[in-house]
Amino acid sequence: MSYILTIRCQDAVGIVAAVASALAAADAFITESSHYGDEDTGLFFMRTVFRPTGTRFTTREEFGEVMAPVVRRFAMELSLQPADERMKVLLAVSKHGHCLNHLLNRWHSGELPIDVVGVVSNHDDMRRMVDWYGIPYHHLPMQGDKAAQEARFLDVIRESGAALTVLARYMQVLSDDLCRALEGRCINIHHSFLPSFKGAKPYHQAHARGVKVVGATAHYVTADLDEGPIIEQDTVRVGHGLSGEAFVRIGKDVENVVLARAVHWHAEHRVLLNGKRTVVFGPGA
Amino acid sequence: MSYILTIRCQDAVGIVAAVASALAAADAFITESSHYGDEDTGLFFMRTVFRPTGTRFTTREEFGEVMAPVVRRFAMELSLQPADERMKVLLAVSKHGHCLNHLLNRWHSGELPIDVVGVVSNHDDMRRMVDWYGIPYHHLPMQGDKAAQEARFLDVIRESGAALTVLARYMQVLSDDLCRALEGRCINIHHSFLPSFKGAKPYHQAHARGVKVVGATAHYVTADLDEGPIIEQDTVRVGHGLSGEAFVRIGKDVENVVLARAVHWHAEHRVLLNGKRTVVFGPGA
Amino acid sequence: MSYILTIRCQDAVGIVAAVASALAAADAFITESSHYGDEDTGLFFMRTVFRPTGTRFTTREEFGEVMAPVVRRFAMELSLQPADERMKVLLAVSKHGHCLNHLLNRWHSGELPIDVVGVVSNHDDMRRMVDWYGIPYHHLPMQGDKAAQEARFLDVIRESGAALTVLARYMQVLSDDLCRALEGRCINIHHSFLPSFKGAKPYHQAHARGVKVVGATAHYVTADLDEGPIIEQDTVRVGHGLSGEAFVRIGKDVENVVLARAVHWHAEHRVLLNGKRTVVFGPGA
Amino acid sequence: MSYILTIRCQDAVGIVAAVASALAAADAFITESSHYGDEDTGLFFMRTVFRPTGTRFTTREEFGEVMAPVVRRFAMELSLQPADERMKVLLAVSKHGHCLNHLLNRWHSGELPIDVVGVVSNHDDMRRMVDWYGIPYHHLPMQGDKAAQEARFLDVIRESGAALTVLARYMQVLSDDLCRALEGRCINIHHSFLPSFKGAKPYHQAHARGVKVVGATAHYVTADLDEGPIIEQDTVRVGHGLSGEAFVRIGKDVENVVLARAVHWHAEHRVLLNGKRTVVFGPGA
Repeated sequence: MSYILTIRCQDAVGIVAAVASALAAADAFITESSHYGDEDTGLFFMRTVFRPTGTRFTTREEFGEVMAPVVRRFAMELSLQPADERMKVLLAVSKHGHCLNHLLNRWHSGELPIDVVGVVSNHDDMRRMVDWYGIPYHHLPMQGDKAAQEARFLDVIRESGAALTVLARYMQVLSDDLCRALEGRCINIHHSFLPSFKGAKPYHQAHARGVKVVGATAHYVTADLDEGPIIEQDTVRVGHGLSGEAFVRIGKDVENVVLARAVHWHAEHRVLLNGKRTVVFGPGA
Repeated sequence: MSYILTIRCQDAVGIVAAVASALAAADAFITESSHYGDEDTGLFFMRTVFRPTGTRFTTREEFGEVMAPVVRRFAMELSLQPADERMKVLLAVSKHGHCLNHLLNRWHSGELPIDVVGVVSNHDDMRRMVDWYGIPYHHLPMQGDKAAQEARFLDVIRESGAALTVLARYMQVLSDDLCRALEGRCINIHHSFLPSFKGAKPYHQAHARGVKVVGATAHYVTADLDEGPIIEQDTVRVGHGLSGEAFVRIGKDVENVVLARAVHWHAEHRVLLNGKRTVVFGPGA
Repeated sequence: MSYILTIRCQDAVGIVAAVASALAAADAFITESSHYGDEDTGLFFMRTVFRPTGTRFTTREEFGEVMAPVVRRFAMELSLQPADERMKVLLAVSKHGHCLNHLLNRWHSGELPIDVVGVVSNHDDMRRMVDWYGIPYHHLPMQGDKAAQEARFLDVIRESGAALTVLARYMQVLSDDLCRALEGRCINIHHSFLPSFKGAKPYHQAHARGVKVVGATAHYVTADLDEGPIIEQDTVRVGHGLSGEAFVRIGKDVENVVLARAVHWHAEHRVLLNGKRTVVFGPGA
Repeated sequence: MSYILTIRCQDAVGIVAAVASALAAADAFITESSHYGDEDTGLFFMRTVFRPTGTRFTTREEFGEVMAPVVRRFAMELSLQPADERMKVLLAVSKHGHCLNHLLNRWHSGELPIDVVGVVSNHDDMRRMVDWYGIPYHHLPMQGDKAAQEARFLDVIRESGAALTVLARYMQVLSDDLCRALEGRCINIHHSFLPSFKGAKPYHQAHARGVKVVGATAHYVTADLDEGPIIEQDTVRVGHGLSGEAFVRIGKDVENVVLARAVHWHAEHRVLLNGKRTVVFGPGA
């Protein structure tokens, strides 16, 4: 049984020593650790994976007490999670099912360390796919009253216990209120290489501009549309012989991979917010 | 209604003129065309997409007659297919379902220009997934008599009318006879960047070697294991912190994309054999 | 001795036949050929490399006469160049010498099929490097009167006989007049993945936005700053631990490669203008 | 003034705590830190950058004493270097000068944190380029007696004080003795994506095999040819229309970038040996 500890605080002398000494005194064996101090913001970020080797300290509560004096001393924001506890994730989709299919397949094969608790959609198209996986499908159509639909969306998030909501090509702009309610725990995939081609039909915008590479961006949702902190991006080459529709098709592969990486990293507590940017303590990919 | 014409022959003066003149005389409008003359082998390759604009010549048979004198003059291997005729494809899989899931999803969404006529497997694991898509699942277990199993495999190919067989992580080595029977119409995905790491457990071989990039290779199957003509390859970075199992997981994304591209291009008659190599008249990706 | 023929005209039935028949009648052997018809603009593009095999037609003038009736019939814009005639290229640079160094090294080693006829700069910093290569260095300082400086720049272009001017990190915005005078024969490298981060300090803009990938763009210069037709783009990953200065450093590798490819392709007459976009008949990379 | 501390030892509870506490007690402020414990080999790796904030401990010797008890306790291999001390590097080249040109240009512009102390070559071709940079050129022709030539090579390394030797397309196989003498401090660039295409003419091997991607590999030199621990690799796409010579040309861009990254990372003490593999504590690229 391992634990994942993440920390964010003002940078100072002695943070690593204090954390590592507290863990060592509790006979914890560190298996992975990354730190980063941002010189621009003066913030310090840390992610440490450790496992108990003694008998005195083994539970989450006990390690919480071990860390308490350190947390107070440095005024830390701290998160401490069992490494084998799969994060509960709610997916949202509209009519393009490729990202949904990719995430569900990866979850079902055991490779994505999450627990999918349901799928929300403003359409009914993906119900059959979701049924196959034996998880709830919440059809929340957008019938005029956006506030009411979002209230039901939020109810589903709460009732499902989801710690993360993933907009897997959910083609509705969330209200500012909902964005704020989900801050830091809602990931969107935008089908362009942000900040290029914000808004609607980005592949067709890209085609009209004559770009030679298209991309996709996974980011946290904020009230500022397509301006949230970026978690992951990737790109693929496109030639002059391809139509806007072909850009759409080719881009889907990048969307799948970029979104799945972002969800994977978030679920492993590898992504920390640093103002409008993110710190990603990645294992390689 | 468009047609796709592909040609392979000894290179000579006047081939393009002869082909294009025959098509122009038949009022055919060329919408896409690529040629390649290989100086090493002396072979000429051509792929032309055209559509009828007149009324005298409109059917495949009529254009076949239009081309006949040119074919004889240059001793061409020629293929002439309606562009909207989806190639019949049979998929084969063992226990790793990611490529199968990816191909089926792309086919189901209408993006992969093929007609999946069934799935063959030496295991029963993927039946439920295949059932969802409403296509036949042929469970051909490998019970000692390899020749008998392969005979049944070949029967399925024939009865299904499949023009292409795709080994989407089918973990059986085909016999030389079966390889020869399927020459040029059977695509395999190998989970390494060939010619590195042939044979079994390539990701674990790659991990032991300490590579910083892993890849996947789609190739035509030949009797020479993992030596067939390569259609497509791609790679992804991996870091020191990743286990062999993580290499396996990350590599799956590359396998999906590489195999789907190869199938897409083959189905659009973009891939021509050039000895142990291929000519791929790609549209960009 | 081979020739490179490029064509742009309104698309129609019989263009390829007419061109190929004219060449075949003149005993020309086609070694490479690509066509593209853009359905959006109705324009047809063609690039054909051929070599004479007979004795009647061997010079550029003779093949010009061979093509003349075809050119008239289809109202073609045609270019016909000896394949071994290296394009005369003038380079321009300010203080960042990496692209200049890369282009000069590639030219000097014989790999870049161009003939560098000189270097223009608004600073004197790169003189020593350019002297080493034995080519003229034109120091045209920007002392208030931009129009006068540009007039001298244009004189250098004319006197050197340069068919292409390459802005290899030349940090001056050209006037509209100069842009128009050099339309289609002036390539700029912009140090971002356009249309993201136009204007000044793009890497620092990218760093502030927290992107995970940076890129570079080679494009034809137009009066609309950073809006010219894109020839080539590429990208490279960047992590959270890198400063804006590190983005600058890492991006230079992409700038080098992207600009050299664009110059290489332009010099081989592979790039044709298609409105605000380009057609690139590439050989692979 | 910062210091870079790297550590390799058997993994155990309390290593990070001991190191961090020793540094904190000496008023050192950690600005960057990465750890990695390899479960396969049981080895622990650490790289920490810190700067003094007090007055009692400021010199390298003082911090060496601070660390001494920790080093003894965990039987560590430790390196402690001033971060602003540029590593002395000797370059070696034969006739292909692209990597040499790239490294020298990057060093000269101040971006590569090394101090180039000279260039060794078995040919005289690159002398003029090296002279321009004002550094010694050691022409050590290979005239039959390989042992004598290598003895002189080793003399140059010693006399120049080089801590790293870089084989920047030096086309001689080093003897086992020389490999052993330079273990862990000699980097080679191999012009293929190892382990594919070891030995001579890798691009032509790759062309004959019909690959769709080529690559380059920077690795530490060992007596086992092309089998040394890999530091960095990268790849680039190639199409069917490219000759073996074109593969050579295109591959050079990858060689440049891959080798420069490897040298950069080694010079910043980011690369640690882990048996036949490497741990690379990278900042992103």
